[in-house]
Amino acid sequence: MSGEFERIARFFERGAERLRGSLANTAVLGIGDDCALLSPGSQTRGDALCAISTDMLVAGRHFWPDVNPASLGHKALAVNLSDLAAMGARPRAFTLALALSDNNDDAWLDAFCEGLFALAAEHACELIGGDTTRGPLCICITVIGDVDLQRCLRRDRARPGDHIWVSGELGAAAYALRHPGLSRSADERLLRPQPRLALGTALGRHSSCAVDLSDGLLGDLRHILERSQVGAQVHAERIPVHPALLGLPLPEQRALALQGGDDYELLFTAPPDASEALHALSVTLGLALTQIGVITKDRARDVVDASGQSLGLRFEGFDHFTPH
Amino acid sequence: MSGEFERIARFFERGAERLRGSLANTAVLGIGDDCALLSPGSQTRGDALCAISTDMLVAGRHFWPDVNPASLGHKALAVNLSDLAAMGARPRAFTLALALSDNNDDAWLDAFCEGLFALAAEHACELIGGDTTRGPLCICITVIGDVDLQRCLRRDRARPGDHIWVSGELGAAAYALRHPGLSRSADERLLRPQPRLALGTALGRHSSCAVDLSDGLLGDLRHILERSQVGAQVHAERIPVHPALLGLPLPEQRALALQGGDDYELLFTAPPDASEALHALSVTLGLALTQIGVITKDRARDVVDASGQSLGLRFEGFDHFTPH
Repeated sequence: MSGEFERIARFFERGAERLRGSLANTAVLGIGDDCALLSPGSQTRGDALCAISTDMLVAGRHFWPDVNPASLGHKALAVNLSDLAAMGARPRAFTLALALSDNNDDAWLDAFCEGLFALAAEHACELIGGDTTRGPLCICITVIGDVDLQRCLRRDRARPGDHIWVSGELGAAAYALRHPGLSRSADERLLRPQPRLALGTALGRHSSCAVDLSDGLLGDLRHILERSQVGAQVHAERIPVHPALLGLPLPEQRALALQGGDDYELLFTAPPDASEALHALSVTLGLALTQIGVITKDRARDVVDASGQSLGLRFEGFDHFTPH
Repeated sequence: MSGEFERIARFFERGAERLRGSLANTAVLGIGDDCALLSPGSQTRGDALCAISTDMLVAGRHFWPDVNPASLGHKALAVNLSDLAAMGARPRAFTLALALSDNNDDAWLDAFCEGLFALAAEHACELIGGDTTRGPLCICITVIGDVDLQRCLRRDRARPGDHIWVSGELGAAAYALRHPGLSRSADERLLRPQPRLALGTALGRHSSCAVDLSDGLLGDLRHILERSQVGAQVHAERIPVHPALLGLPLPEQRALALQGGDDYELLFTAPPDASEALHALSVTLGLALTQIGVITKDRARDVVDASGQSLGLRFEGFDHFTPH
């Protein structure tokens, strides 16, 4: 299925590419990264860019229709803010387009708004426009942020020798999806992911390459490797696994942490001499930052165990959240 | 139904208003106009603003699922570009989020892209990002444009004594919806509306108040009257009716032209001394511009016939395009 939608996305990428060829004033960065980057006007001086990203959440595909509406309001904005974080951008504003069914009554809307606006207030992100219609429940949010050209985090900026880092602890959302109700903290990670905006904006001094983890670490790392035209060696034993997973057999822990989705942590690369500053940043933010591997010049990708043996894992998310 | 969705929209307006109260750096213009206006970054000099608008089109509500996909691709972008036109903004870029069903095969996508990208190329509007998923067919486009603070066209800028103007000829789309296949030019207006971008950007020198006609002239004029806190007298006999309607009884002509939706012409106000320049602009653009009434200080709204008699029409769109 994800292959099918990659194929479909290529229809639009091809069209967008042809279109760019005919335009005089194109975006700094178009399709293919966490956000697009747009120079905001011909009169604008300096390196201020608009970072823009859009995500559509469909009932029955990205969430169960009976999900807690406050969590849904939170998550619909969180996944978009996570794209800004992965670009190193500061949130400014968002638009919300919403198709609502008969089940979405006033109590539902109240709770949805509560989750949505609480997160928006936390990150000073203003609702500036929207569209409401009737239809099968569907939420489309577009976020707009600010980022300086010199501080943005692009997928195509990994360099051989860079260390590969990841924030937080992985696998909790995928665990909660399979074992709901067993771990409150894992459930919370699935339902209310925290976009790593403070990390994203601070990273620009140390890194120029990041992606957010939505489809699983290996699948998202692949985006960096392909766009940067490099390879990677990842050390399985260094992967920061969420405590909820520690009772599981090691292969299942690794599968959830490396290939499970919906973590919304940041994966980034940085030159080795940034390590000290990144450890200090980790302390400042109160957020684990873990070096899990290295970018290689040859294009090979591998996950190895402590003895250096390949685990033969594929660099793909194996199970995006798909109730149907 | 439209009342129901106005009620729902207020949930989000209230939330957005509370949120604005807690923010330091808010948008120049938030919810309630054709576009939001955002100053694009703290470092930005001058009056360059981002104009942003979003629209969601749902199969079975805004279009039949078996509509010609090239027309759908055109229209999905056109209705968004029309919001930029109504703000006086120049298009820069758009994002596309798309839920596709099993029926949307390669041939469908090819045609959809053809309609979409042809219009995007015509108006130099770049596709910069998107999201593709499976679901009941649903299209959400967000457009981003540029506009100068001094040249933008806001709904809250009508002044007593201003003339009320409208572009083009009205009622064709509503006619085609009721009588499909009888008039090729009316069908074309319904399926492939032309966003009035050249008019919108030129208007900024003569007008500071406009709205695009999506829900019908009287309903859309009401948005201007409410936000500007003024009234209006509209002269029914001056309404430019599309030729396809001329065989219909006069009351039906008026209903379609004044209350039918989907015209995507611009309704704007301008001081009386701008009339000569507007007639000249009409010639330059090859687009009819017709003065249809006047803004009044008292809040009354009325449509009168040639003898000055009130027609008793309500300032509401009576029939937005709702197949189900």
